[in-house]
Amino acid sequence: MTQTANTSTNDRTARTPVALLGLGAMGTALARAWLAAGHPLTVWNRTPARAEALAAEGAVVAATAADAVAAAELVVVCLLDDASVGTALADADLTGKDLVDLVTGTPSEARERARWAEGRGARFLDGGIMAVPPMIGVPDSGGYVFYSGSRALFDRHRAALEVPAGARFAGTDPGAAALHDGALLCAMYGLFAGMTHAFALVEGEDVDRAAFTSVLTEWLGAMTAVHAAGAAAGPASPLAMQVAATATLLRTTEEQGVDPGLVQPYFRLMERQLARGGDEAAGLVSLLRDRA
Amino acid sequence: MTQTANTSTNDRTARTPVALLGLGAMGTALARAWLAAGHPLTVWNRTPARAEALAAEGAVVAATAADAVAAAELVVVCLLDDASVGTALADADLTGKDLVDLVTGTPSEARERARWAEGRGARFLDGGIMAVPPMIGVPDSGGYVFYSGSRALFDRHRAALEVPAGARFAGTDPGAAALHDGALLCAMYGLFAGMTHAFALVEGEDVDRAAFTSVLTEWLGAMTAVHAAGAAAGPASPLAMQVAATATLLRTTEEQGVDPGLVQPYFRLMERQLARGGDEAAGLVSLLRDRA
Ligand SMILES: NC(=O)c1ccc[n+]([C@@H]2O[C@H](COP(=O)([O-])OP(=O)(O)OC[C@H]3O[C@@H](n4cnc5c(N)ncnc54)[C@H](OP(=O)(O)O)[C@@H]3O)[C@@H](O)[C@H]2O)c1
Ligand SMILES: NC(=O)c1ccc[n+]([C@@H]2O[C@H](COP(=O)([O-])OP(=O)(O)OC[C@H]3O[C@@H](n4cnc5c(N)ncnc54)[C@H](OP(=O)(O)O)[C@@H]3O)[C@@H](O)[C@H]2O)c1
Repeated sequence: MTQTANTSTNDRTARTPVALLGLGAMGTALARAWLAAGHPLTVWNRTPARAEALAAEGAVVAATAADAVAAAELVVVCLLDDASVGTALADADLTGKDLVDLVTGTPSEARERARWAEGRGARFLDGGIMAVPPMIGVPDSGGYVFYSGSRALFDRHRAALEVPAGARFAGTDPGAAALHDGALLCAMYGLFAGMTHAFALVEGEDVDRAAFTSVLTEWLGAMTAVHAAGAAAGPASPLAMQVAATATLLRTTEEQGVDPGLVQPYFRLMERQLARGGDEAAGLVSLLRDRA
Repeated sequence: MTQTANTSTNDRTARTPVALLGLGAMGTALARAWLAAGHPLTVWNRTPARAEALAAEGAVVAATAADAVAAAELVVVCLLDDASVGTALADADLTGKDLVDLVTGTPSEARERARWAEGRGARFLDGGIMAVPPMIGVPDSGGYVFYSGSRALFDRHRAALEVPAGARFAGTDPGAAALHDGALLCAMYGLFAGMTHAFALVEGEDVDRAAFTSVLTEWLGAMTAVHAAGAAAGPASPLAMQVAATATLLRTTEEQGVDPGLVQPYFRLMERQLARGGDEAAGLVSLLRDRA
């Protein structure tokens, strides 16, 4: 153990120095991951008190954001939102910097921020973090970050970027990471909506919760694969049959005293698609983009 | 091959005879599975023409539903809906019969049908088919049927019931199979809604569809497990943070020109839960059942 720690300390100079701006819940987790992996780390936070514990753990605390940026070529920002990035970096010299923006935002915010950074002489990589702080720096946690923008920046700093979580390149369009992030989170909330509705249906019934959760999980795995394969609209389950079956699902929902609000919008979308005579999977997507 | 076929034919008398009422898409698939497995099969369908092909394949065709019921102890109905079961079996003698009702319905319809059948001297088992016809009789298709009601009937006829698809006992409450069926299907439509929204977000963008589908599938598998474990409301992602993040998701949705209607109801539910100061997972379920 002591030996490993020594090795890590000795190696520290060989690791890419990182400047990190933002020490909220996520920034603090990132900081600890880079420190643990032996990266020289300079941190800055608007409220200085949040940097104190990290200073004791080996981080250099910069007095200003501009000082932090000056301390390393690789500059990572993990602030609240895109506007705070503009505010915090207003006075920093970004010339020659590799700027990695881990703030959650929209695709167009990322594209605009990329133009802004490049206009100030930096290379830019946007990131969308698919993890919560307890997963950061934990091998095999399953957490990862989508990156998009400068492929050169990504390739050059890949080793450092992979320290806190897995690193996946989503495309050279700087908006791609935010788009992937948003799409996966929206899909997740659809999934959660369905699971919440299902748990509400069985609530209070004589149904073993663990056994039900297990069949539900297995079922959703199978149905994710079916839908991903575009097989949901296969000949065996034509849209008309599915629409007809929703009537029973709504009656079951009503019998159980459950608000149908989480499932009804998709039922309505299937009905609209049936009414216009289209096929399913691709058709529903186009309906969502075709706001009459 | 010939030997296997002969064995199957020789064994036919050893297999449980089945009477099957209803030869629609699902009934016909069930009939073929039992015939292929060597079960003596008597069929009936309101429109006799649909029985012709099966007669050529070895099924005995009954002239009336009552005749079909008289032909076997194990009677399976796979008609359109619960009302058609009452109509079709109006004149049949159900005394001593083991009646398996594979019609999709609500929990209370199944409970009522169980009382009706028991009042006529039959044991009753309700079934909810988690499969489409092409999966019936196909080993390892993943399809199965939830059964609920008479455990004695289920245990006695388990071998025959497992011929078309896997058989799972959901409880002695006759409504349990319909409840499981409805809950899993509603959860599936939530999942499909989320996936449809995600595909709509990336539509028309320079995003590799296969790669995106693969990360989406992987993500949904992980998030299903997270939500099933009740970990969605863990300390790392408090409800307040999730509600705040939905604003970005809605802006991304708007930027991409996508109708937010499939994801908004769950966002609103999280907001309502936050407003009443509750925690997440369990709280959302109770909100769905607490219709103001
Ligand atoms: N936490 C997660 O689970 C998670 C997951 C994925 C992505 N993310 C993303 O990661 C980013 C950071 O999240 P977090 O959880 O660390 O947030 P947080 O705990 O709320 O911390 C916010 C950070 O932003 C700083 N900040 C806010 N406004 C600022 C401004 N105008 N100028 C300078 N600094 C400002 C705060 O500084 P003060 O200390 O001075 O207030 C703090 O360091 C967000 O974009 C979030 O969406 C978080
Ligand atoms: N197909 C699937 O993917 C699937 C999946 C899971 C569960 N199920 C359930 O399985 C059941 C049968 O589905 P299916 O796909 O076979 O339906 P289907 O192809 O529409 O066939 C309906 C059957 O019901 C009969 N029927 C309708 N009304 C009747 C009445 N009043 N009296 C007597 N018979 C009547 C029809 O007879 P005629 O031929 O005379 O019209 C036909 O045999 C339904 O409850 C369905 O929800 C189906």
